[in-house]
Amino acid sequence: LRSPIMGHSPAQQYQFTVLMVVIHAVFLVLFGVYVTFDEKYAMPGGTDDNTFMNTKYPNYTDTHVMIFVGFGFLMTFLKRYGFSAVSINMLLACVTIEWGILCRGFLTEHFAEHGTIPLSIEQLLEADFAAAVILISMGVMLGKLSPMQYVIMVLIETPAAIAAEHLVEEVFHINDVGDSIVVHVFGAYFGIACSLAFAKKQQRGHEYDGSIYHTDIFAMIGALFLWVSWPSFNAATAEPAEAHHRAIINTLLSLVGCTITTFLTSQLFEPHRRLNMVHIANSTLAGGVAIGTCANVVMDPILSLALGSFSGIISVLGYIYLTPFLSRRLGMHDTCGVHNLHGMPGVLAGLFSAVMAAAYPKEKFGTSLASIYPAMANNGQTESGQALMQLAGLGTVLGCSLISGAITGVLLRAPFLNQVRDEEYFADGDYFHTPDDYDFTTRIAEKIKHVSVLEDENKTKMSMA
Amino acid sequence: LRSPIMGHSPAQQYQFTVLMVVIHAVFLVLFGVYVTFDEKYAMPGGTDDNTFMNTKYPNYTDTHVMIFVGFGFLMTFLKRYGFSAVSINMLLACVTIEWGILCRGFLTEHFAEHGTIPLSIEQLLEADFAAAVILISMGVMLGKLSPMQYVIMVLIETPAAIAAEHLVEEVFHINDVGDSIVVHVFGAYFGIACSLAFAKKQQRGHEYDGSIYHTDIFAMIGALFLWVSWPSFNAATAEPAEAHHRAIINTLLSLVGCTITTFLTSQLFEPHRRLNMVHIANSTLAGGVAIGTCANVVMDPILSLALGSFSGIISVLGYIYLTPFLSRRLGMHDTCGVHNLHGMPGVLAGLFSAVMAAAYPKEKFGTSLASIYPAMANNGQTESGQALMQLAGLGTVLGCSLISGAITGVLLRAPFLNQVRDEEYFADGDYFHTPDDYDFTTRIAEKIKHVSVLEDENKTKMSMA
Amino acid sequence: LRSPIMGHSPAQQYQFTVLMVVIHAVFLVLFGVYVTFDEKYAMPGGTDDNTFMNTKYPNYTDTHVMIFVGFGFLMTFLKRYGFSAVSINMLLACVTIEWGILCRGFLTEHFAEHGTIPLSIEQLLEADFAAAVILISMGVMLGKLSPMQYVIMVLIETPAAIAAEHLVEEVFHINDVGDSIVVHVFGAYFGIACSLAFAKKQQRGHEYDGSIYHTDIFAMIGALFLWVSWPSFNAATAEPAEAHHRAIINTLLSLVGCTITTFLTSQLFEPHRRLNMVHIANSTLAGGVAIGTCANVVMDPILSLALGSFSGIISVLGYIYLTPFLSRRLGMHDTCGVHNLHGMPGVLAGLFSAVMAAAYPKEKFGTSLASIYPAMANNGQTESGQALMQLAGLGTVLGCSLISGAITGVLLRAPFLNQVRDEEYFADGDYFHTPDDYDFTTRIAEKIKHVSVLEDENKTKMSMA
Repeated sequence: LRSPIMGHSPAQQYQFTVLMVVIHAVFLVLFGVYVTFDEKYAMPGGTDDNTFMNTKYPNYTDTHVMIFVGFGFLMTFLKRYGFSAVSINMLLACVTIEWGILCRGFLTEHFAEHGTIPLSIEQLLEADFAAAVILISMGVMLGKLSPMQYVIMVLIETPAAIAAEHLVEEVFHINDVGDSIVVHVFGAYFGIACSLAFAKKQQRGHEYDGSIYHTDIFAMIGALFLWVSWPSFNAATAEPAEAHHRAIINTLLSLVGCTITTFLTSQLFEPHRRLNMVHIANSTLAGGVAIGTCANVVMDPILSLALGSFSGIISVLGYIYLTPFLSRRLGMHDTCGVHNLHGMPGVLAGLFSAVMAAAYPKEKFGTSLASIYPAMANNGQTESGQALMQLAGLGTVLGCSLISGAITGVLLRAPFLNQVRDEEYFADGDYFHTPDDYDFTTRIAEKIKHVSVLEDENKTKMSMA
Repeated sequence: LRSPIMGHSPAQQYQFTVLMVVIHAVFLVLFGVYVTFDEKYAMPGGTDDNTFMNTKYPNYTDTHVMIFVGFGFLMTFLKRYGFSAVSINMLLACVTIEWGILCRGFLTEHFAEHGTIPLSIEQLLEADFAAAVILISMGVMLGKLSPMQYVIMVLIETPAAIAAEHLVEEVFHINDVGDSIVVHVFGAYFGIACSLAFAKKQQRGHEYDGSIYHTDIFAMIGALFLWVSWPSFNAATAEPAEAHHRAIINTLLSLVGCTITTFLTSQLFEPHRRLNMVHIANSTLAGGVAIGTCANVVMDPILSLALGSFSGIISVLGYIYLTPFLSRRLGMHDTCGVHNLHGMPGVLAGLFSAVMAAAYPKEKFGTSLASIYPAMANNGQTESGQALMQLAGLGTVLGCSLISGAITGVLLRAPFLNQVRDEEYFADGDYFHTPDDYDFTTRIAEKIKHVSVLEDENKTKMSMA
Repeated sequence: LRSPIMGHSPAQQYQFTVLMVVIHAVFLVLFGVYVTFDEKYAMPGGTDDNTFMNTKYPNYTDTHVMIFVGFGFLMTFLKRYGFSAVSINMLLACVTIEWGILCRGFLTEHFAEHGTIPLSIEQLLEADFAAAVILISMGVMLGKLSPMQYVIMVLIETPAAIAAEHLVEEVFHINDVGDSIVVHVFGAYFGIACSLAFAKKQQRGHEYDGSIYHTDIFAMIGALFLWVSWPSFNAATAEPAEAHHRAIINTLLSLVGCTITTFLTSQLFEPHRRLNMVHIANSTLAGGVAIGTCANVVMDPILSLALGSFSGIISVLGYIYLTPFLSRRLGMHDTCGVHNLHGMPGVLAGLFSAVMAAAYPKEKFGTSLASIYPAMANNGQTESGQALMQLAGLGTVLGCSLISGAITGVLLRAPFLNQVRDEEYFADGDYFHTPDDYDFTTRIAEKIKHVSVLEDENKTKMSMA
């Protein structure tokens, strides 16, 4: 209680404390009043059958690894922001798990009828999906917010995302089995709108906005666990058994295709034909997003392979051409390139799902309609009706995310909030105790930069001569 | 066979070799004489039903990840002890798996009747729990023992822990589904007593007892895999299906609450309001310990959330105030702060379990008694009888661990054993081949320490001025 | 499209691009023409039973973690080759998953009858096994090939390995449940033959062929995930439930024994009695290979423990004595020491399987024959007949792998292919964008090497004096 945060007035010292105490107290009260165990699965007298758990739990633990290890380590690529990346990721996931259980619970029929929110593995799984939305947006804002600003983002974004999801599922009855529309599109465009509204010149071209050799390898821990677990994420809610099986295979094929085209495209379009680790850590995952909405759909396996392949190409080209363009033209800053990993591939997923719905051989696979296309199965929609619903859902999510993200970005500018100092963007130092070598490697790296740029140019000249 | 270990006499060169050859040979003989495959699950003519395996195996693999990756990497935070942390962790786990299967097997009814120890996935799971006890104690002693001393610790602690567990389960019939009493309390207080008996002035304030930037990130690999897998650890032995389900949910809620209060408390009580990675890597896990004993109990979800939240607070305050106090007053050195992660939260788990037992609505949930409270179900105990048993169990484990730990610490002081040199505490160099840069980063870090301390003070003065 | 790869002529710039476009296009066409979803498990009207998936999926995800995280990070130990190791590992795995599904599919009876290749979780699992073959060979060639050369290796090795596997399974009816013969022996000796045919003096004793402190810790991420998941790898295809159960236990025991003897042997035979991280990261896994072929066999548990223990010893001694010997005599260069981790332990697995088959108490366990020894069960072979089949299978795989590996090595020497420059062996710089500190730590490490060697010698002299 001795010394203040760097750059904050004494009055700003307790913002994080007050915010966290208040929200955690409110959550505790709401849990106490409304949340119970699920009678069927988690209470005495409930089922004695392990099948439900044995089917859901492996997908849940994989998803859990994605949320805490995957997203957390993927964001450690910044040379001076590793502590924040992996820690704030953990904090936001936990706050969102609480807040997401409550928000989603309040919208259920069960709550309307009984006034309680019962918990089973299914609610935990959905809470992790809610966390994914937040962590995607965090990727855009990475390095630009103080801990308390990140938490404010959670408080606004979680109900907005869950309301949007509720809308498109209950009103439009879309198929979005792997949540590419309601999680990836929402998280990405919320983050982008927030970033645009929050933009400051000093965020772009910042000396700390980059990696060093070992932090790029740390990021691959996250990338690989995301890659490996993605089939579980997309298949977790797919039912029955055959749709679940199909969702796993489709997702794997899409990821495989995407990984191959990521390498191909990255090497072809980068100077010196050198592969870029940003693409390898991020664009290889675009295939998981692109197939998400349709992972359970009956289609020829080549389609998921081709879709994934296409998503890898647009993701890499997005990193190379679109991100710099948006930065120059709109002043947009997207720390992790979320637009290329979650944004465009998520929109692709939505568009692809409309095409697939329109072309679905309804007659042939009538029995599977209920589990795949709710609007066709329950609301008597035609194929093209379902396709329009898919597009309407995509558009709705885009609109909701952009509006709520922009509002959040404006609110986060409020000068009385803890704001990161310009010179400390993308750096742990103000909010974390850092060991003595914290400065060392990065400072050295900056100094040898000048030398290496010169050397590189010389080498190129020599090899071309 | 050429050159000796630094600082050891020629006669001390072969201690590790002789010890390992002898114990491994003895284990091999004992396995040969007593250990068989389980007839029902793992022999021809046994069951053809996959349900048992499908229920246990995901929990087993998660526990396995905790033991080898989780504990191993959590202890890599020391700047010069990463090789030892991750490797010795692996060695001790393997020795304990062998020794634990044997010790526990000898105490079973099956052994008394048939003279054999049958193996199934259940015995492997329990062997991993035995390893957890050791690795917790290793966290207290980290950096202070030579490899052969660590192995001696395993040889003494494993039978002591298993005997204590047998006592409290067979005599007191306690509920301890997630093993917080028999694993966490035992491991922590054994380690603490051992450390006190082994204490030397040079261990405290040692120049190598600290982290550098990347080793704190390595430690988060361990922390996150522990965090993510903890529900599996606590639920692995919970039966039937509904109790298993409840154990997972209770553990997750406790961890979530704990993580939020860890951030809150760490930020509030640290200088400059800076978060401390030691707390984030360790105290966020206290919730898994605190709920362990009661994870299968029927209770309102708010209780697990609140218990976890409380455990996060005491764990962080333990790191900030209690650990330095115990170091000053008792000369205690606890490298990983195990007392704050496993010790106090484990005692909290025991106390909480007594309160919950006393308040259990026996009439209402009579059918579930058998799977939750053995003393009530099988020995006709009342609610308060079960509560007393829980306290008696906790006290017994505390006593056994402190006594056996202190004895071990005294034995480990024996001067003829391989002892770590004072200047090489918390360092790999004497027992591992280290690459050429081993010294570099840490030496640099020490040199820039002086500069950075000065800079820091200047900055603070300026910002306060 | 601006600047060329270092050291390549303009005409060589597009080799990787052209190769990848062609093979990915061909794979897409072949998938479009031949690959479908499995009717029973993954199509509407298929099974509604989750048991198949719940049994296979946890083993699959563990195997998947081994392929992408395990192999990928195990190979990050080189100080300047971390980007390549973890990325090229990912690329080759993906190419092999596509190519492996096709190659294996073309050899199935189902394809012969129906002209299609149906996909279920089983084909995905087998595709991961095919990837393991490649990644083992990659371990031998690590740091010596350009990306496009690695891909050429995949194109040749995958059909060769699958053909050899088909031969020994369909003709010799061997038991090889954990694929030690068809995966580990093939991958290792293919790589070794390839390396011999590709050998160049400059590859041996290269200044970049070594680790720094943190890269050895990165490698342990891979090693530990391989270690933890290996029981799933060996048991994945074991059936029925009791054989699956046994395969898990046997593998665990073998790994435990192997880990203990690895530490014992490494410490005993290394100078200064210092443990060597190369052994700890690699030889501890030999037990998983050694038990692989027989993991499902009914035997006393001591046998798996003893076999594992033996494999740890030969693996460490291989690193200390055999590898340097083969390097001096044959000019062999094996970057990861694959011969000691996969090669010799794989041959040991084959030999052990012959002994076990010859000694199998056929009368006693008749009912389990079908699931263990196909030649005995289906072809009326005697015990010694099965034993001979096991040896014939091992010999066949050895022969096929050596021949196809040598041919590949010769082809890869073709001067018109992208070849790594001599001074850039074991380095990322030519094929990856590297951050500014890429050179720094390794250069420093080389400089302090001289100093530390001198210091070390002085210390030794002093401690012996």
